Amino acid sequence: MIARTILVLASLAMAAPALAEPLIIEKQGSFFVGGRTVKSDTLSTLPAYAASGTITVDQMYVRYQVPVDPKKLPVTLIHGCCLTGKTWETTPDGRMGWDEYFVRKGHPTYVIDQVSRGRSAADPSVINSVKLGKTPLDKTPPIFAAGQEAAWAIFRFGSEYPKVHPGMLFPLEAQEEFWKQMVVDWAATLPTPNPTVPALSELAKKLDGTILISHSQSGIYPFQTAALDTKGIAGIISIEPGGCPAPTGDLKPYMNMPIMVLFGDYVDDAPRWAPRLKLCREFAEAMKKAGGKTELLVLPEIGIKGNSHMLMQDRNSLQIADLLIAWIEKNVAKK
Amino acid sequence: MIARTILVLASLAMAAPALAEPLIIEKQGSFFVGGRTVKSDTLSTLPAYAASGTITVDQMYVRYQVPVDPKKLPVTLIHGCCLTGKTWETTPDGRMGWDEYFVRKGHPTYVIDQVSRGRSAADPSVINSVKLGKTPLDKTPPIFAAGQEAAWAIFRFGSEYPKVHPGMLFPLEAQEEFWKQMVVDWAATLPTPNPTVPALSELAKKLDGTILISHSQSGIYPFQTAALDTKGIAGIISIEPGGCPAPTGDLKPYMNMPIMVLFGDYVDDAPRWAPRLKLCREFAEAMKKAGGKTELLVLPEIGIKGNSHMLMQDRNSLQIADLLIAWIEKNVAKK
Repeated sequence: MIARTILVLASLAMAAPALAEPLIIEKQGSFFVGGRTVKSDTLSTLPAYAASGTITVDQMYVRYQVPVDPKKLPVTLIHGCCLTGKTWETTPDGRMGWDEYFVRKGHPTYVIDQVSRGRSAADPSVINSVKLGKTPLDKTPPIFAAGQEAAWAIFRFGSEYPKVHPGMLFPLEAQEEFWKQMVVDWAATLPTPNPTVPALSELAKKLDGTILISHSQSGIYPFQTAALDTKGIAGIISIEPGGCPAPTGDLKPYMNMPIMVLFGDYVDDAPRWAPRLKLCREFAEAMKKAGGKTELLVLPEIGIKGNSHMLMQDRNSLQIADLLIAWIEKNVAKK
Repeated sequence: MIARTILVLASLAMAAPALAEPLIIEKQGSFFVGGRTVKSDTLSTLPAYAASGTITVDQMYVRYQVPVDPKKLPVTLIHGCCLTGKTWETTPDGRMGWDEYFVRKGHPTYVIDQVSRGRSAADPSVINSVKLGKTPLDKTPPIFAAGQEAAWAIFRFGSEYPKVHPGMLFPLEAQEEFWKQMVVDWAATLPTPNPTVPALSELAKKLDGTILISHSQSGIYPFQTAALDTKGIAGIISIEPGGCPAPTGDLKPYMNMPIMVLFGDYVDDAPRWAPRLKLCREFAEAMKKAGGKTELLVLPEIGIKGNSHMLMQDRNSLQIADLLIAWIEKNVAKK
C-alpha cells in the first residue's frame, strides 16, 4: 500500500516540470447534446420579452479539448450538486484543474454542465406562471442554493462550520473563490433519472467509448446511464457518489464494465457520507460475487490521508488524477 | 470600400490553412472576479438543504487562454441577452469561435459569463421567500427566457418568424444548436449598472490593459465600466449595442479611448434596432466633434452584407474578427 503511494508521488514529481510547458491542443470547442422544445405562455413577465413562445431545455453543455494524436480514451467529467463544470477547471488556489491535466496526460477531455445548470438552460416558465396567478404558489419549483455553513460539513472540510479536520488538504485559504463556484441548483425540479443521464448516453455513443467520471450528486449518473444503454461507456469512475446502485438490484448493466468507486478521508465521522460509503461497499461486494470488475477505493486505506469531498481541488489533486489515470491504463480496454 | 473587403477576404484565405494546425497555449484556466456574500433564511425549501446560510453572488466567471509569448493586448468577450460565454465558442454549425480565433491571432482571450448567468451564480432566495409566504407574490424576480419566435426578429434572422432576410449569413440550418445556447436571464432582477460592470472594471485592472468587446444587452457595459474608471480599458468594441451613451451626456470617460461601434445588416428595417443605430450614430458624431476616437461601422456600408445580430456566429464570422483585429492593430496602443 505504502509502496503504491510512493510510486504515485514519484510519478507526480517527474510529471511536474512538464506542466509548465505550453499545452498543445489538436482541437477544442463546445456543443450541446440532448434537448427538447417546450411551448409556454409564461416565458416572461416583462413587456420587452414575449410571454409566449418556444424554448429548448434538457440540453447538456459540453466543452472539450483533444490532445494531438490521442492514444488514450476520452474522459467525461461530470460535476456534483450546486456546482458546474468549473469544478474541474483551475482550483480555487490557482492550480491546474483536471480538465487540463487529463489532456496533458493524453486523454481527450469533455467537461459538462448538468442539464438546468450553468450553461445548460433551465425553464423559468412555472415560476412566471405562479407569479401571474396561473399556477398555485406551492407548485413553485424547489430551486435552491447551498449555504456555505451547511456545505462545509457536506464537503467534509470539518465536522461542522468552521471546524477543520486535522490534516485537511482542501485549500481553505482560497475558500472565497470556491464558494463563488456554487450556483442555483434546479435538480430537484427535474424527473428521475435526471435528463443529464440520457444526454450522457448520447454523448457516450457520439464519442464511441468514454470513461464517465462523476462526482457526488452525479455519482449515480454513470450507473443510470449504463442501465439505459451500455453502448459507448468504456468505464465508470464514481467519486464520492451520493449513491451506488442497490446491491440487491439488477447488476447486469455494470457487469462487463471496469468500475472504480472512490472516497476520500473522514468519511466514517460524517453522518451524511458514512451510510453512502457502506452502501457502495455492499454494491462493490455484490459485484465481486457476481464476477464484475468493480473496485472500491477509500484513499486513507492506501495511505493517502486528508482528502475532502472536493478531492479534485485538494492540494494533492494531481496525485489523485495520476492514480485514476493509472487505474484506467490498467483496467479499461483501449479503443 | 470594396478594396478593403477584398483585402480582408484575402487575409482570411491566407489564414485558413493555419486554423487546422494544433493550437499552442501558454496558459489557460478560469477564475471569478467580484462577488459579495448574502445571508438568507430562504436558500432552500427542501429538507435536504438548509434554508439558512450564506451564499456568494455578483461574481463573474472568467475563462481565459493565453498564446505563447503574446505580443498583442488581451481581449475580453462579453455576451448579450439570454446567452452565456458559449456565444463566442464553436458556432452552431461547428466552426471555430472567436474565443479560439483571437488566441490564434496572438490575443490573450478572456470569456465571461455575466453575473447571475451561466456559471456566475444567481440568488434564488426571493423566489423561495415568495413560495414560503414571507414575500408578496408580485415581488417574484422577473426572470425570463427569450422565446425563439420573438428572438428570431431580435437576432434579425428575418423581419418576423420564420421569414428569412435575403442573403442571410447566419447558419440557420443549425438553428436548433443555436437555440440551445439560450438560458434564463436574471438581468432584470439586478441593479443598474449590472454588477457585471464593476466586475469588468476589476478584470480590466487585473489585466492592466484589455479591449472590452461587448454585444447587444452588454453593449453598453464597457461604456459604463469606463464611466466608473477608465483604468485598464485599452479600447472598446461594442457590437450591436442595445444602447450607446447619450450624445448629450458626459463624454469625458470615452475621450482618450479608441472605440468601435459595429452593426450588421438589415438594421434599417428592424423596429428594435434602427433607433439604437440612430442613437449610436449621434453618440459617434458627438464624440467626433469633441475630438474623441470613436468609429461607427455599419457592415453593409463597407460592402459586407448579410450579417445578422449574431455576427460572431455568421458564416463570415472570422472575416469580421479579422476586421476587428486589424482595427485593434491600427488604433489601440500596445502595452
